[in-house]
Amino acid sequence: MSSPSRSYLKLETRFSRLSALSGAAAILQWDSAVIMPPGGSSARAEQMAGLTVLSHELLNHSETADLLDEAEKTVSDLDDWQRANLKEMRHSWRHATAIAPDLAEAHSRATSLCEMQWRQARHDNDFASLSTSLTEVVNLTQKIAAAKANVFKTTPYDALLDEYEPGCSSMIIDRLFADLEEFLPGFLTDVQDRQSSEPPVILPNGPFDEAIQKRLGRDFMTALGFDFNHGRLDVSHHPFTGGVADDVRLTTRYQAEDFTESLMGTLHETGHALYEQGLPKKWGTQPVGMARGMVLHESQSLLVEMQLSRGHDFMAFTLPQIKSAFNGQGPAWELENLQRLYLKVEPGLIRVDADEVTYPLHVILRYRLEKALLSGDLSVADLPGAWNSGMQSLLGITPPNDTMGCLQDIHWPSGAIGYFPTYTLGALAAAQIFQSAASGIEDFSEKIQDGRFQDLLRWLRLHIHSLGSSTSTDEILRAATGGPLGSAAFKTHLQARYLSR
Amino acid sequence: MSSPSRSYLKLETRFSRLSALSGAAAILQWDSAVIMPPGGSSARAEQMAGLTVLSHELLNHSETADLLDEAEKTVSDLDDWQRANLKEMRHSWRHATAIAPDLAEAHSRATSLCEMQWRQARHDNDFASLSTSLTEVVNLTQKIAAAKANVFKTTPYDALLDEYEPGCSSMIIDRLFADLEEFLPGFLTDVQDRQSSEPPVILPNGPFDEAIQKRLGRDFMTALGFDFNHGRLDVSHHPFTGGVADDVRLTTRYQAEDFTESLMGTLHETGHALYEQGLPKKWGTQPVGMARGMVLHESQSLLVEMQLSRGHDFMAFTLPQIKSAFNGQGPAWELENLQRLYLKVEPGLIRVDADEVTYPLHVILRYRLEKALLSGDLSVADLPGAWNSGMQSLLGITPPNDTMGCLQDIHWPSGAIGYFPTYTLGALAAAQIFQSAASGIEDFSEKIQDGRFQDLLRWLRLHIHSLGSSTSTDEILRAATGGPLGSAAFKTHLQARYLSR
Repeated sequence: MSSPSRSYLKLETRFSRLSALSGAAAILQWDSAVIMPPGGSSARAEQMAGLTVLSHELLNHSETADLLDEAEKTVSDLDDWQRANLKEMRHSWRHATAIAPDLAEAHSRATSLCEMQWRQARHDNDFASLSTSLTEVVNLTQKIAAAKANVFKTTPYDALLDEYEPGCSSMIIDRLFADLEEFLPGFLTDVQDRQSSEPPVILPNGPFDEAIQKRLGRDFMTALGFDFNHGRLDVSHHPFTGGVADDVRLTTRYQAEDFTESLMGTLHETGHALYEQGLPKKWGTQPVGMARGMVLHESQSLLVEMQLSRGHDFMAFTLPQIKSAFNGQGPAWELENLQRLYLKVEPGLIRVDADEVTYPLHVILRYRLEKALLSGDLSVADLPGAWNSGMQSLLGITPPNDTMGCLQDIHWPSGAIGYFPTYTLGALAAAQIFQSAASGIEDFSEKIQDGRFQDLLRWLRLHIHSLGSSTSTDEILRAATGGPLGSAAFKTHLQARYLSR
Repeated sequence: MSSPSRSYLKLETRFSRLSALSGAAAILQWDSAVIMPPGGSSARAEQMAGLTVLSHELLNHSETADLLDEAEKTVSDLDDWQRANLKEMRHSWRHATAIAPDLAEAHSRATSLCEMQWRQARHDNDFASLSTSLTEVVNLTQKIAAAKANVFKTTPYDALLDEYEPGCSSMIIDRLFADLEEFLPGFLTDVQDRQSSEPPVILPNGPFDEAIQKRLGRDFMTALGFDFNHGRLDVSHHPFTGGVADDVRLTTRYQAEDFTESLMGTLHETGHALYEQGLPKKWGTQPVGMARGMVLHESQSLLVEMQLSRGHDFMAFTLPQIKSAFNGQGPAWELENLQRLYLKVEPGLIRVDADEVTYPLHVILRYRLEKALLSGDLSVADLPGAWNSGMQSLLGITPPNDTMGCLQDIHWPSGAIGYFPTYTLGALAAAQIFQSAASGIEDFSEKIQDGRFQDLLRWLRLHIHSLGSSTSTDEILRAATGGPLGSAAFKTHLQARYLSR
């Protein structure tokens, strides 16, 4: 085989510089959420804007286009990873250059304003105050979607979706969501009937010392394989996983009266973090070395939180440690009671607080509404009404106000249309991957009960993490689980967990 | 007055982007020293290199040169601050463009390697292992100095000095240092004689709780006027002041057996921090809004640490709080004893541990040696010998090994020749400024004893901080103190503190 062309190697250098800039931005973003004193925010905004503009200029530079054209002429000189890398470079270049710089700038300015107003509007329960700026964001997002649809030869919505989950489409989502919408309402009734016949959940009594909560979180992270030499655990208002693959920064938050929120949140973020820490080091500065997309990313967090951590085996491993750490005694601390607590199913108003049964219904509502907003079938003014009637028909409850309704999420004010479906696609993928992993690992259940997670991590590394973006989500899932993304494993999982226990 | 030219305004935009990049780098540097997990270092190095290269490209871009040329043609359209700003822009452009890119890169690579080898060499007490890479650094620094001397029409050493303290020169330093060298040895003997006749210092008994040390540090920082809305106090191995003016990040370190090191270190850094927080906000993103140079910067830290905090009035304010925080009792906690502890004078081997009387002698040695290294009069191989004989003649002691001798400082391995003198010039400036402030503020002594620092801070804001780089160090000092930088106030201060007490 010949060696890679000069143009390809120059692209690697260029994209490694882009990776350095986005890595710097990721650390600064973490800093803003965790460490920064309030008065530092405007200087920070300038720093972030500077990094964004320079990255954009670097990617949009005519030299980048020339190098891509040239390198693609000699693609046969590249090995598989280099070829996949070149493909990913072209893909991010397409997204960056699809829209005119002034549209990108207008969008960035509009979303900054709208996010700011959204915080106030949510606080004041005042949707009307948001409607002008949200309308502007939607209008600009429509223009971006149209421009990208033109480049990617797809529908406007799918062009946006492609930013978060390359290769995905409404067609795939429609089919899967239709299936869930048919299955979930009846299933939900069955689960609620069953849960109401069970003994009531007894809440363990706090307060739970924050230092102990933190130690437990760190212990379980370590047991799962999180490498603290390449990462940290800190506190922020909204938990997230940030930083870069070599320096993964998780956050959580602690409540004195309820240790489960922090614990489950930490485990959720640990799933994201293990994915990042398992990405191929050799390709760490290149597009092909990045996580494949939001569906697999969310699959990894939900695999750890929902599939693994709320399951009986994991609880059998963790409960003695939790109980002893908090000196827990009495019936509240029995495994069956805690599992009923972890698995309580109940339709609620807030997506981020939802259980795994009702969560997809929240997502289906948002998916429907954002498609209608983007197509123009739904105006921003009509959003609250459409939200409330959607909640009623999907979950049987109507928000008492917009703060607990259509003002609860930051996604649309921040211009993220096309993101929501990845949460539920991730949940389906999590179930499907977990099922494969569990059946592919000998004595799986015993290993989990013993806290021996090495085989599970090795399996995930091999089948998901180490592949980076070398191939598509679809191919990764087929190779790992034997088939394309579907809802069967998820439904099987729900039935086993909530009705057959 | 006409409005500023288009070219000037474009320069402001360009330099504000440069400021965003250097601000991002400053936060990341803080992060590396305080927060980063060890495994994150190589990704961080890439991020820093990316920011450095981009800043360099932006400053060296031919457009920058064109804009500077154009803007300088219509300098009469600018107000005083804009004019000073333009001058500073030209100044940093000159430094950046004086040396060829390949020389800059070679220097950066050589210093990275040499710093790394220095850590090992210091640890192993193995100067020989450093000599090749230090020779390379010196050679490249000679080339840089020659190139800059050519641009700035000055001597090579003064061209390097100009990076740290614009406008300073060896002529000024030689005069001041000659005076100190004449004064200090005899003075030192007198002080040591006197101190040996005093009661021996009684060390307060620890351990001193870290949380209490931290609270005291924060309390005194707050009292002095540090704004925690725009800054933080954290822990690092080597204390420093980092971050940006709107988000100033101090660090300290705590020792269980000795609370004074952290306390004095924190107060020292607070002086730096107050300068940063007092810089003109309006010019925060421009060169003219930055701190004037290392002499004034060091003057502010030494003003707070040496002039103020080790003085009787400040101790009268702080001692009751410190005593009560640590529940201190007995003769060790009497003011006179603690002051003897704070003011103990003794020639030692290590610069950073030196008292204010012997510190200048450490600096004079380094100044001499680095000039000789730069001129080629001293070879790297002969450095240890020259160091040891210099220590013997200036301080009367000879290091038992190079680790405690010429391997103790990172400056030369990191390529910083021309930096050392600013420590002592800063000490002279601190004495001179403090003398002016004290005599310009009514009831100064009572205010300090009461912990009322507002007038002192206001004075420093007005005469030093708020001027940024709008005028030269020399002019700032003349306006604030009535004369150019001299050694008189420093000598008066030493005599009053150590012999007339």
